[in-house]
Amino acid sequence: MDNPNLPSKKILLETHQRIKPFIHNTPVLTSQLLNEVSGCNLFFKCENFQKMGAFKMRGAANAIISLSEEEKSNGVVTHSSGNFAQAVSLAAQKLGVKAYIVMPENAPQVKKNAVKTYKGDIIECKSTLQAREAAANKIKEEKGATFLHPSNQDEVIYGNSTAAMELLEVQPELDFILTPVGGGGLLAGTALAAHHFSKKCKVIAGEPMEADDAYRSLISGKIETNETVNTISDGLKTHLGDRNFPIIKDYVDKIIRVEEHEIKEAMKLIWERMKIIIEPSSAVPLAAVLKNKSEFKNKNVGIIISGGNVDLKNLPFV
Amino acid sequence: MDNPNLPSKKILLETHQRIKPFIHNTPVLTSQLLNEVSGCNLFFKCENFQKMGAFKMRGAANAIISLSEEEKSNGVVTHSSGNFAQAVSLAAQKLGVKAYIVMPENAPQVKKNAVKTYKGDIIECKSTLQAREAAANKIKEEKGATFLHPSNQDEVIYGNSTAAMELLEVQPELDFILTPVGGGGLLAGTALAAHHFSKKCKVIAGEPMEADDAYRSLISGKIETNETVNTISDGLKTHLGDRNFPIIKDYVDKIIRVEEHEIKEAMKLIWERMKIIIEPSSAVPLAAVLKNKSEFKNKNVGIIISGGNVDLKNLPFV
Repeated sequence: MDNPNLPSKKILLETHQRIKPFIHNTPVLTSQLLNEVSGCNLFFKCENFQKMGAFKMRGAANAIISLSEEEKSNGVVTHSSGNFAQAVSLAAQKLGVKAYIVMPENAPQVKKNAVKTYKGDIIECKSTLQAREAAANKIKEEKGATFLHPSNQDEVIYGNSTAAMELLEVQPELDFILTPVGGGGLLAGTALAAHHFSKKCKVIAGEPMEADDAYRSLISGKIETNETVNTISDGLKTHLGDRNFPIIKDYVDKIIRVEEHEIKEAMKLIWERMKIIIEPSSAVPLAAVLKNKSEFKNKNVGIIISGGNVDLKNLPFV
Repeated sequence: MDNPNLPSKKILLETHQRIKPFIHNTPVLTSQLLNEVSGCNLFFKCENFQKMGAFKMRGAANAIISLSEEEKSNGVVTHSSGNFAQAVSLAAQKLGVKAYIVMPENAPQVKKNAVKTYKGDIIECKSTLQAREAAANKIKEEKGATFLHPSNQDEVIYGNSTAAMELLEVQPELDFILTPVGGGGLLAGTALAAHHFSKKCKVIAGEPMEADDAYRSLISGKIETNETVNTISDGLKTHLGDRNFPIIKDYVDKIIRVEEHEIKEAMKLIWERMKIIIEPSSAVPLAAVLKNKSEFKNKNVGIIISGGNVDLKNLPFV
């Protein structure tokens, strides 16, 4: 039975049309060697080649386009030090909207610089979640800016769906699509796309064992959190939210947990064999496939490479 | 007037057909950001995604396929510690031919391992050119193996042509194609392809200032060599040969020399902005475009990304 909050196929198609001028239809790459290693046919949707280097551009663009003219004139605000901060900054810049980015004062300079490149307005605060939320709330009140959530907002989730929609256009016969799961926005969006645009494609997530809140949430039936998050996959340390969890619960087949060394090995394989730059989070789905080879044997398996923003000075596998 | 040694269009088309089962038709990538930085429309033919990670697979495959059955049964030999060694090993393996690879005993273990992965038979020798040639000659005499040259052999040059042929199939309206120049095999092959498959496309090479033998050869009209080769572009330290120089003299428009810091900056741009892994030699053409921006302004410029085999532990730009 369909989830009552489920967006229609039409809504997703309209979302794709709406954001197309602001995103790349990224290439789908294959690798004979990785097919041999994994025993299945892998199709990598390369969102590391997306504008600003990650799928987050899709959701950010959709969220900002969806605002009223009055809302747009007051700007948007988010608190993030990662890819969503860059995505909101770039999408806002392209749409002529002011972007306020709340970042912890100890965020790496490289991340601050990336936001500045896209003309985001950085507001520094203490590094606690409370301080970040307080700073964002202050901007909302003072400027009338609209808060954008990186993963738990319908417009963001629907925007994220478009990566899997494009993948299924190129490879309609997929048996599986795998994504990483952190905040749940990409996983939920992918599950919606597979539900509407494929008859048989199951959606599976890879998750670091060290931050396995989503895995535990599917078991307990409620949103679980992590006490510690000792993973190199810095995009996957957050937990699910009330907008994406119902979709994940209904339309995601399973979550496969992987160890840190498995993430590093998968990352190294993709760098060395595919010659593409991916961030650690993006290696998690391949690590999941390699861990459960028999499940995927001879199947057509799509993998969303979520992003390629990585500190080249500090690679985890060399 | 046509060079009398010039292969016909038909020969190049047959070459492409012949090697197709053994190579990838690699993707052509674009980057809006690099277009903005350079002021022209760049089309990157990604031979870093080629089998074994470099365009050398094309020439090696063609050279081995072109042998007689008797020659094939006696194997092939080359002396190289770079991409050609891997290419010959892999092409020979796929064609069921024995490959003898003469390598200096002090070659990096990672390069020896790559050859072993493809089942090449490594013969170690002292690291001088004389020792390498003597070792290769010994194999020729003892085993009857055919010597394959990495850049100065017609079959290798014609095989290399197929990269630019594929690029021109996808982008027929190119004004320029740029390649790096080392031994001259890729540059000559690209010039042949542009001559036969484009009406207007000029071919230009980028060359490190620190190993500018090809630039000086075009001026003097004879093959020049380098006294020193202090460049990070380890694939570009060799000099032209008597088979490729006549083609380069007749069909290459010019050679643009670039400094080491320009190569590093171009390499960094491609890694960080395009999220693809390229070796230093592959950054030389973009460095040449960025050095001579006015020449390429608003033009359609193809660049052959020659390969992606790089030591991740020792990146020159981080």
